[in-house]
Amino acid sequence: MAIVAIVGAGFMGTATAWPLADNGHTVRLVGTHLDRDLIASCKANGFHPRLKRTLPNGVQPYFVEELPTALDGAEVILSGVNSLGVRWVGRTMGPLMRPGQRLIAITKGLDLTANGDLIILPDLLRSELPAAIREKVPMGAIGGPCIAGELAGRRQTCVVFGARDQAVADGFAALFRTSYYHVWTTADLVGLEYCAALKNAYTIGVGLALGLLEKDGGPDAAGAHMHNVAAACFGQACTEIARILQVAGGTSQFAYGLPGAGDLYVTCMGGRTIRLGTLLGQGHTLTEVREILAGLTLEGAEIVRVMGVALPRLVAGGKLKPDELPLLRTLIDVIVQGKPLRLPLDAFVGGTGRV
Amino acid sequence: MAIVAIVGAGFMGTATAWPLADNGHTVRLVGTHLDRDLIASCKANGFHPRLKRTLPNGVQPYFVEELPTALDGAEVILSGVNSLGVRWVGRTMGPLMRPGQRLIAITKGLDLTANGDLIILPDLLRSELPAAIREKVPMGAIGGPCIAGELAGRRQTCVVFGARDQAVADGFAALFRTSYYHVWTTADLVGLEYCAALKNAYTIGVGLALGLLEKDGGPDAAGAHMHNVAAACFGQACTEIARILQVAGGTSQFAYGLPGAGDLYVTCMGGRTIRLGTLLGQGHTLTEVREILAGLTLEGAEIVRVMGVALPRLVAGGKLKPDELPLLRTLIDVIVQGKPLRLPLDAFVGGTGRV
Repeated sequence: MAIVAIVGAGFMGTATAWPLADNGHTVRLVGTHLDRDLIASCKANGFHPRLKRTLPNGVQPYFVEELPTALDGAEVILSGVNSLGVRWVGRTMGPLMRPGQRLIAITKGLDLTANGDLIILPDLLRSELPAAIREKVPMGAIGGPCIAGELAGRRQTCVVFGARDQAVADGFAALFRTSYYHVWTTADLVGLEYCAALKNAYTIGVGLALGLLEKDGGPDAAGAHMHNVAAACFGQACTEIARILQVAGGTSQFAYGLPGAGDLYVTCMGGRTIRLGTLLGQGHTLTEVREILAGLTLEGAEIVRVMGVALPRLVAGGKLKPDELPLLRTLIDVIVQGKPLRLPLDAFVGGTGRV
Repeated sequence: MAIVAIVGAGFMGTATAWPLADNGHTVRLVGTHLDRDLIASCKANGFHPRLKRTLPNGVQPYFVEELPTALDGAEVILSGVNSLGVRWVGRTMGPLMRPGQRLIAITKGLDLTANGDLIILPDLLRSELPAAIREKVPMGAIGGPCIAGELAGRRQTCVVFGARDQAVADGFAALFRTSYYHVWTTADLVGLEYCAALKNAYTIGVGLALGLLEKDGGPDAAGAHMHNVAAACFGQACTEIARILQVAGGTSQFAYGLPGAGDLYVTCMGGRTIRLGTLLGQGHTLTEVREILAGLTLEGAEIVRVMGVALPRLVAGGKLKPDELPLLRTLIDVIVQGKPLRLPLDAFVGGTGRV
């Protein structure tokens, strides 16, 4: 049995405590400075107010000041912060880490290098670690469809763990697998991370269709919704994810597996990202949406922003044609440029009218 | 402008009248013997009771006895019957058809040849036509995500038309395309028809997860649904569709495009097929489901039955391994064999734990 330190006590970080504790591992749950109230509650009575659940037996809560104690002797560290906290976690945790400690990340996102190239978050996190341990920390990441509250409720869940070294991914999976947490592994860390990030961007795309319906007054007198256009966006989303995977050298089959279509589906079933898209579809600006969804981190919008920087570079480098990825371009237009929404349906699927 | 005869006045057949009429074509809507009440209403006041809409101007309703008149001079015939009516429509309509009349089908399904091989419905329909015209009727089919009530409401809709001859598909598309009905074309008629059929089978698979939630008493005290397992089924569905397309020689990219992921999404958003899956997931037998959904044609269950015959033959012929397609096999177990539901999650994605 291992000692596992989870850094970041939000929804998903905390939810991973359930399979770990059920497997008999010692779990240390460390809140960031944003999680103080959550950890205080966990310390007082074991109840996590955001997940609305009592932590499993044996999960020990820690305030951020107790990070050195929490990491001491931990064989595995799970980075459970959101995409805005990746650099922080690397800088704060790195000096406390020792060679051989294994690091697994659940953060969904993509970021940019100084010269504007896309970088997956595990690589960003690694780059923030002290040089002395940077290459001595086996690293992996978790992707695939998983709503945290369901995992914490021990609902059946199928996910994919990735690491560039297949053996590292397999080692993590062995720690986490339970009768309800089904884990596949892949050495295509890049493809997995692209899917985890892009599904948030494209969920906004499906949400746009839902918002257009509300803007139009909802179902008409005969009960017609706008599922057809949402479905077109869903299919186009998977198609564009496959294309981006191809450009990034990732496994394009992910587009129609758990990391792509599966994760897109679950993200469309509820939560902040589909709500963000719906609000944009209704005609709200991103600024208005931020006010309406106050306090929620809009990771989907951040990924669209990042892709808005990366796309012109990919086109300039000859990796993409200017008219490819019309749904992603629409998201960039609306979210980054603030343009009014116009779904370019005729540009979908290659834009030639033939598939 | 063309004269188009639609044979079958149910939801989808009738809905195609909207783009056709909006393009100025003369549309003759012919009910089958099952559509007598619908056609009587259309003749009386132009109102289609099932779609709950008044037909567009210029759509002329016909009883089945008037089929000869309706087909006379029609340049295009659209077969709008359900999968149980394909042979009937071929036998009834065939003797009235003339060489050069074009035939397009919207029926979703797969059937079996006398020796148990899979056959797409346009080929089945063609086989029922008189030998004298069988090879003289250009034929196509419509696939892709489209809820009929939305098309009739002129909601934005993106679909794919297929024909073995690309020019035939393009010719049909030119008749139907409007500002709200976006049509792509493909020469991969087989791949398109497989998707159109399989998405009904796999929607049942996603529905199983929804039913399991209801069987379990619904969301738990902390609000956890079972979207994770539904998402796993959704991703697995797309993965299995891709595999079947590969075996059938179809375009595997359809799995993550409009015909696959897009059509699966829209079918999961509501209607008889997702309801069928949900009821099975709750623990009802197919017999009970047929009683509950009395009067509705359960095409999804029929496709599962057909695949239950075809699969062993594909395995025996070395085209599939016995452990492939675990979700489809589960559907066959439940629907054909009447076995209790057990979702084989660990067998998903190859069953090896690696993707």
